[in-house]
Amino acid sequence: MNTTTLPLVTIVAESILHDRLIEELKKAGAKGYTACSAEGDGSRHLRSGELLGDNVRIEAIVSEAVAEKVLNVLARDYFPYFALIVYVSDVRVVRGDKYV
Amino acid sequence: MNTTTLPLVTIVAESILHDRLIEELKKAGAKGYTACSAEGDGSRHLRSGELLGDNVRIEAIVSEAVAEKVLNVLARDYFPYFALIVYVSDVRVVRGDKYV
Amino acid sequence: MNTTTLPLVTIVAESILHDRLIEELKKAGAKGYTACSAEGDGSRHLRSGELLGDNVRIEAIVSEAVAEKVLNVLARDYFPYFALIVYVSDVRVVRGDKYV
Repeated sequence: MNTTTLPLVTIVAESILHDRLIEELKKAGAKGYTACSAEGDGSRHLRSGELLGDNVRIEAIVSEAVAEKVLNVLARDYFPYFALIVYVSDVRVVRGDKYV
Repeated sequence: MNTTTLPLVTIVAESILHDRLIEELKKAGAKGYTACSAEGDGSRHLRSGELLGDNVRIEAIVSEAVAEKVLNVLARDYFPYFALIVYVSDVRVVRGDKYV
Repeated sequence: MNTTTLPLVTIVAESILHDRLIEELKKAGAKGYTACSAEGDGSRHLRSGELLGDNVRIEAIVSEAVAEKVLNVLARDYFPYFALIVYVSDVRVVRGDKYV
């Protein structure tokens, strides 16, 4: 099977950020996403204000350029203010043109 | 710790396909799977008919041959008709013989 | 964007083990984790006693040394007695110092 290697961007954040993060992904050029409910704890989970809601784990297969853009936006506009983890891994997909 | 590198196949699809996809994985030779509830949107999320159910994210660690078989079956029998994402990444496992 | 490559450890186990596994991760040196509810089946899902609860999928970005320690503890103290899968993949993170 012919596959293409693309970056998979995974974001873990407070659920309250779900809609904003999906919006950021789309603005950066992501064609889709998958989100799961999650809970967690960690040095990057700073909790914004009084909100103690659950977390959300969002993943999106994108182009290298879109992955770079997402990392830049999150590092600049979210990391200083919100509980947020973001990581990128390489995955092989069928019909890579659907994601870029 | 001695580890083996094996492909991890991840499938995201409408929940209605859960049982059929597990069946395909087993028929292809997968020894097990893990599934999470998910929601999402994207160019590959075409929605079949009237059904607007949630999505499911299924992952399975398999042999290279089983991964190849799963990709082929999904590309041939599912991609034309259903909302479906499939991607493969490499993971290191302990006791790799349990998965192949 | 400057990134660091770190191991992402993923553990899938019966929900009943959630707290113990988080404790093991922390004891091994993990700075945080993300957990999702899951269900599954497989050769490593042996079911401990009468308990038929759901599964949990826990992931943590850690240092190589912590990943090694987690694999060793799980292989020694959990694999013989519990339904458990553990796998490691490489991910690129922003601000890698937060995880090690």
